Amino acid sequence: MKLLVINGPNLNFLGIREKEVYGNQDYQYLLSLISEKAKKENIMIDTFQSNGEGQIIDRIQEAYFDGTQGIIINPGAFTHYSYAIRDALASMDMPKIEVHISNVHKREEFRNVSVTAPVCTGQVVGLGLNGYILAVDAMLNMLQ
Amino acid sequence: MKLLVINGPNLNFLGIREKEVYGNQDYQYLLSLISEKAKKENIMIDTFQSNGEGQIIDRIQEAYFDGTQGIIINPGAFTHYSYAIRDALASMDMPKIEVHISNVHKREEFRNVSVTAPVCTGQVVGLGLNGYILAVDAMLNMLQ
Amino acid sequence: MKLLVINGPNLNFLGIREKEVYGNQDYQYLLSLISEKAKKENIMIDTFQSNGEGQIIDRIQEAYFDGTQGIIINPGAFTHYSYAIRDALASMDMPKIEVHISNVHKREEFRNVSVTAPVCTGQVVGLGLNGYILAVDAMLNMLQ
Amino acid sequence: MKLLVINGPNLNFLGIREKEVYGNQDYQYLLSLISEKAKKENIMIDTFQSNGEGQIIDRIQEAYFDGTQGIIINPGAFTHYSYAIRDALASMDMPKIEVHISNVHKREEFRNVSVTAPVCTGQVVGLGLNGYILAVDAMLNMLQ
Amino acid sequence: MKLLVINGPNLNFLGIREKEVYGNQDYQYLLSLISEKAKKENIMIDTFQSNGEGQIIDRIQEAYFDGTQGIIINPGAFTHYSYAIRDALASMDMPKIEVHISNVHKREEFRNVSVTAPVCTGQVVGLGLNGYILAVDAMLNMLQ
Amino acid sequence: MKLLVINGPNLNFLGIREKEVYGNQDYQYLLSLISEKAKKENIMIDTFQSNGEGQIIDRIQEAYFDGTQGIIINPGAFTHYSYAIRDALASMDMPKIEVHISNVHKREEFRNVSVTAPVCTGQVVGLGLNGYILAVDAMLNMLQ
Amino acid sequence: MKLLVINGPNLNFLGIREKEVYGNQDYQYLLSLISEKAKKENIMIDTFQSNGEGQIIDRIQEAYFDGTQGIIINPGAFTHYSYAIRDALASMDMPKIEVHISNVHKREEFRNVSVTAPVCTGQVVGLGLNGYILAVDAMLNMLQ
Amino acid sequence: MKLLVINGPNLNFLGIREKEVYGNQDYQYLLSLISEKAKKENIMIDTFQSNGEGQIIDRIQEAYFDGTQGIIINPGAFTHYSYAIRDALASMDMPKIEVHISNVHKREEFRNVSVTAPVCTGQVVGLGLNGYILAVDAMLNMLQ
Amino acid sequence: MKLLVINGPNLNFLGIREKEVYGNQDYQYLLSLISEKAKKENIMIDTFQSNGEGQIIDRIQEAYFDGTQGIIINPGAFTHYSYAIRDALASMDMPKIEVHISNVHKREEFRNVSVTAPVCTGQVVGLGLNGYILAVDAMLNMLQ
Amino acid sequence: MKLLVINGPNLNFLGIREKEVYGNQDYQYLLSLISEKAKKENIMIDTFQSNGEGQIIDRIQEAYFDGTQGIIINPGAFTHYSYAIRDALASMDMPKIEVHISNVHKREEFRNVSVTAPVCTGQVVGLGLNGYILAVDAMLNMLQ
Amino acid sequence: MKLLVINGPNLNFLGIREKEVYGNQDYQYLLSLISEKAKKENIMIDTFQSNGEGQIIDRIQEAYFDGTQGIIINPGAFTHYSYAIRDALASMDMPKIEVHISNVHKREEFRNVSVTAPVCTGQVVGLGLNGYILAVDAMLNMLQ
Amino acid sequence: MKLLVINGPNLNFLGIREKEVYGNQDYQYLLSLISEKAKKENIMIDTFQSNGEGQIIDRIQEAYFDGTQGIIINPGAFTHYSYAIRDALASMDMPKIEVHISNVHKREEFRNVSVTAPVCTGQVVGLGLNGYILAVDAMLNMLQ
Repeated sequence: MKLLVINGPNLNFLGIREKEVYGNQDYQYLLSLISEKAKKENIMIDTFQSNGEGQIIDRIQEAYFDGTQGIIINPGAFTHYSYAIRDALASMDMPKIEVHISNVHKREEFRNVSVTAPVCTGQVVGLGLNGYILAVDAMLNMLQ
Repeated sequence: MKLLVINGPNLNFLGIREKEVYGNQDYQYLLSLISEKAKKENIMIDTFQSNGEGQIIDRIQEAYFDGTQGIIINPGAFTHYSYAIRDALASMDMPKIEVHISNVHKREEFRNVSVTAPVCTGQVVGLGLNGYILAVDAMLNMLQ
Repeated sequence: MKLLVINGPNLNFLGIREKEVYGNQDYQYLLSLISEKAKKENIMIDTFQSNGEGQIIDRIQEAYFDGTQGIIINPGAFTHYSYAIRDALASMDMPKIEVHISNVHKREEFRNVSVTAPVCTGQVVGLGLNGYILAVDAMLNMLQ
Repeated sequence: MKLLVINGPNLNFLGIREKEVYGNQDYQYLLSLISEKAKKENIMIDTFQSNGEGQIIDRIQEAYFDGTQGIIINPGAFTHYSYAIRDALASMDMPKIEVHISNVHKREEFRNVSVTAPVCTGQVVGLGLNGYILAVDAMLNMLQ
Repeated sequence: MKLLVINGPNLNFLGIREKEVYGNQDYQYLLSLISEKAKKENIMIDTFQSNGEGQIIDRIQEAYFDGTQGIIINPGAFTHYSYAIRDALASMDMPKIEVHISNVHKREEFRNVSVTAPVCTGQVVGLGLNGYILAVDAMLNMLQ
Repeated sequence: MKLLVINGPNLNFLGIREKEVYGNQDYQYLLSLISEKAKKENIMIDTFQSNGEGQIIDRIQEAYFDGTQGIIINPGAFTHYSYAIRDALASMDMPKIEVHISNVHKREEFRNVSVTAPVCTGQVVGLGLNGYILAVDAMLNMLQ
Repeated sequence: MKLLVINGPNLNFLGIREKEVYGNQDYQYLLSLISEKAKKENIMIDTFQSNGEGQIIDRIQEAYFDGTQGIIINPGAFTHYSYAIRDALASMDMPKIEVHISNVHKREEFRNVSVTAPVCTGQVVGLGLNGYILAVDAMLNMLQ
Repeated sequence: MKLLVINGPNLNFLGIREKEVYGNQDYQYLLSLISEKAKKENIMIDTFQSNGEGQIIDRIQEAYFDGTQGIIINPGAFTHYSYAIRDALASMDMPKIEVHISNVHKREEFRNVSVTAPVCTGQVVGLGLNGYILAVDAMLNMLQ
Repeated sequence: MKLLVINGPNLNFLGIREKEVYGNQDYQYLLSLISEKAKKENIMIDTFQSNGEGQIIDRIQEAYFDGTQGIIINPGAFTHYSYAIRDALASMDMPKIEVHISNVHKREEFRNVSVTAPVCTGQVVGLGLNGYILAVDAMLNMLQ
Repeated sequence: MKLLVINGPNLNFLGIREKEVYGNQDYQYLLSLISEKAKKENIMIDTFQSNGEGQIIDRIQEAYFDGTQGIIINPGAFTHYSYAIRDALASMDMPKIEVHISNVHKREEFRNVSVTAPVCTGQVVGLGLNGYILAVDAMLNMLQ
Repeated sequence: MKLLVINGPNLNFLGIREKEVYGNQDYQYLLSLISEKAKKENIMIDTFQSNGEGQIIDRIQEAYFDGTQGIIINPGAFTHYSYAIRDALASMDMPKIEVHISNVHKREEFRNVSVTAPVCTGQVVGLGLNGYILAVDAMLNMLQ
Repeated sequence: MKLLVINGPNLNFLGIREKEVYGNQDYQYLLSLISEKAKKENIMIDTFQSNGEGQIIDRIQEAYFDGTQGIIINPGAFTHYSYAIRDALASMDMPKIEVHISNVHKREEFRNVSVTAPVCTGQVVGLGLNGYILAVDAMLNMLQ
């Protein structure tokens, strides 16, 4: 099984910025969590991070060709306005799970709206870095 | 460890109503999934279902006294307007996870708003009955 | 043929409260109108009134099991916000007619919105207690 | 007793257009239903159809002079914006019932608003061509 | 003179939940404040608390028959959406005062709207448990 | 000097409908008021009334060819939605005054919006039938 | 007969500011127009201008005591938000006419709303300084 | 092949009104453009213009019977509110193209909304009188 | 103890204007009620009324220097838009109670919004002139 | 003559994603259609596609220097929020035509708003891949 | 060169009220900063503060006559609703700069809207008392 | 001291596009203004321009590592929707000033909203290229 985990803008600054919101662990730590999980479940998980909307769309489109079976995506702030990423996700005929580390419903009002959620299979919100692991579990449940 | 799983109105009709939205498995099957998980993880999980807002609030308040350490709740349609359940959840000082079986963001517009989510720790949305199991996993991760 | 007529909160106070809006006839009179109609048409009509949202949902769900073929419902004020009753009605695969005694479009703005109407077959509005009888006639027309 | 039944724009295309919404019976069939009912109840029922807002207002105003005692109107799409028809109806001091063949609450959002309903006595919605017959019954109930 | 004091959902958790909002005194203390006041003014004051909307409406309707001359109500979160309680209050032809312990205008935006206030005589907001005593004084002023 | 006075839908029912709003004088009386004024000021004033939007536009367009120097228009309910009449008025390069007999700002909310006012020179509102005479005076002031 | 003409903020700058909107004639010229009209009609007309909301309210209240029979007011920008002037006007039981020199419907959107119009008898809008004279004529028509 | 070109209210005043918006060419010139195109493509193109909403609906309905294979319509101001024309177009099972001479998105805000576009096949906007010719080309492309 | 009672615009016209809303007692009567209460409770109560927003702010600021311990304010129509009075109140570090004589929630929609309430301690609404006395009682309760 | 055709995000996935919306022909086919048209009309047409907003702006800016005389752009999802592309287009002093393959007015509500249309010359919507060809024809009409 | 610095309501309470928002320096300190700057730049700077909207308008109007060449204004809370001050500023044909000490975009939502900014040349926001000095520098840059 | 000046999309076209809005000076001229200022104040100022949202976020993140002490940013059109740039700025713990060359409050409505301003220290708006120099002065004031 091959999954793809995409992180959007500023998520490379995890553990650096706004620790009261996102916690102390950094992006390297997240990557290690994910690769441990991959090893444990004996699956392949590619990871990708970019601050650029176009690059994220490019990476989603690559998934169409490279055998990816499921996409886990934390679109960061793009969640709230990137209809272009929404369109890219909509064209992928596979399970897609949106992850948010913090509970976006507790924060600024603009974070209550997700333009990407309607084209995903589901969401995991507010459960910290563990949310990515739960999303992998959900993928295993759906794809096996 | 002791958890409480609350299901709101009409969830007792799982597998009976609108199968194209909620799937074919019924409420009894969901209860068996949860009790298997409890056994596997060696924890206690109480379950409760009611069509009545007052009864759900009563049950949440009981959790204050009966040693419950975490609440997993699918408030059903109350998600969208029960500020009374919101207040009850807000007064519980423990992890609380909101679960929705279907992806509410794909359905009628009124289902996009959750008045209970801002007082929960997080949400699991659209991942089917497995969402309850993932919520238990998240509880284990937070409480251990 | 077996029909169910449900009246929501405060309709037991018909003829007691706000007579300029609802008229002088009381709830007992409405029940007698309905039972006369049942006799005349030689059908069974169950009636139910409650001020509680949960009890109304319970009663709707019972109709799934007790041979009811059509539901006539005046949800009272629940019309305007009870998505839980809406969900219960949506799961009933039979004709459902919403009745309002007064013309809700002439009254406060909040009464212009019905969250239950989209899952019903139709509505009879503003035609007094006779509205229930017309709804029975419509049921006869649909079910025969 | 003398009643007037007015049908607004495009209702002459009943049974021709959008049969999945309005059913297979055409406007002629509706007229025959109404004239049968008139015969059965031994009353006079005039019918009128026009695609023109001005003509419909003209016809309503004529009813002021020709002995009409009640108006049954399906304003078609004019329901949603013709304040001019609303004003014409408001000036008629007699029972007025708005009829919609389909359940407008299940369709496009603009069809949820009726600018004519607040000046009518009541509404019959979503009960098919039978809705006109029920409206005649309601008139009989009110005028006798 | 006979008054009724109704407290809505979660007010039985006074002094337990969110003390920074509602203060340290619990519901028992509120009841003792009220009964002291009743003794001092030599009047009867019934008290009632429920988390259930239907039960609150039932209790309001009882007041129609049991000689109650005025209703003091803190509808809790029902303040913001229970049109059913609003209708029940509207049908009571006696003074009705809405009380809120905290200043709802300083809190979440949804708490700024009261659907019950338009059918009450007045409101006492943000003056703590003493608000109930002031409401009793206002009743004495109005009813004597 | 040649002026045109246009009255929209239902204004032919002046003095017949809703006398508490529009007064007791009928449309004939208004015509006599206007023709007296014309005689007194020694000018020509054409009058026109129609319930039809298209006919009103046709009449406005005729004014382009027949020597009319100013248009006084009470568009009735078309005031609030007829962008087509707005466009017709906009294309007339002459003074145009909108008249309303009643004070539309005191009535239903939909009457607060005029889509035709922005393309007129000015408005006279709420001053009764005399408003037409004042509009003629304003025309005299502007055109002389 | 005694009338009062009130001009609100910045109207003393007529003919100085924004001549393309208000024309070239200054406030002195307006005063002379009004006093000529008073002489011609043989009535008393007091005039008052202030940039201060409180002073305008004070002046309106004086009119209650000084024999004023009608108020003509151009509230300037206060038109759009001074509910305090609205309340002052509402308490005056006499004809009140709101005047605007320019057509406010052609300008910024905020100028489309008048909070004072609903408590006035009528409005004269967009007819230049002549609007004040037309308002006096309307007063004569109403008061004689 | 037989096409129908419908022009709504005020389009007969092309080249007369607002030339800065619609250009200098008049309605006759537009007709000649269209008939030249018909000749060149060797097809039949009927044209129709009316200021009346009802007449336009009548003409659309005739197209159902007279062999018309495609409708090109510039509904003028009706674009923004005529749900009745929308319903008429919706009932025609053939290609329909909406044309606007000017770029409506650059003009008043109300012109940004088209209630007829959702039931058409497509739109040609802002490309001048040539827009009608392009619409004919599109029809040829679709129908051949 | 020293309190300050501020009354905003038009409250000097109590008992003169709109008696059906505010009752028959005039402003002098209110002052006498307040001074009696002061005598009875043996405290100092200053009173102030102005139609001017600036003067009310000036008076609030004086309270900072003159030993005032609590402010009772009925801002009249300023309640609904004076962010300047709100700022003045916000800077006073003492109990502040907003009083409204009538139930503002029963009146025009604009009266439902209070921009000053969020910076006050609490509100007393709809309890007549007695509301000022209840506010004094609340002050005594808070300050003693 | 030299034209530029820009395609925004996901249009490289034409014929791959959502064929029921965009049809079966892929992006290569579109390019061949355009180059055939260029050959036939004997003009130069550059094409460009990118998923990146910045790159599209860069390409538009290049057109300022490279002799481009007209821009045809399908901004894809950027249509609905990219004010940056809007600004880039606004600075190009040449004809600009926005093309959408599908009828955006029939799809999700967010697709009804184009932030780029107000700075373009016109739009061709819902006419399939042929829309690009019609846009070229419109360019020829405008530029020759 | 002669400049005028106007401060609106409550700014005389700088350093007294809400120091966490506005800092510890008081209004006297601000005046000394400004007069130092005037001396240093060898220009005249008048200062004015009032809690009264009318007085501020009066002072702006005086500037028309007293040789003022530029106005720096912090309208305080009037920023958000005083269309009267907006009109006064609009009539001054000279540079005008709006200053806010705190970053209004970080505070309550109503502070995000400035009704005066559209008629000013520019704004300096959130840069503390230094904002006034920067505004003087900007004036020097524009006027020299 | 080391500052960073970032310019967003299309600002490289200063002096080329829309000179009536942005003036005649080009981006090179702006760079020379800034470097002169740096020399004069003896500080380092890096400059950066990009049309790409991702690149701007990348550059902001670099500032975290390269010793930058303050960021001056004109986000161009990204001001109005780039929550991703907002998040990047929010994570930088240093003074940040938003600059707009033109007065955005005088232009299209969408330009009135800044999603980045709430996370900046302050704003300088509408003061031309000099705005950047004033921002540098403000930085000197804050950082020294």
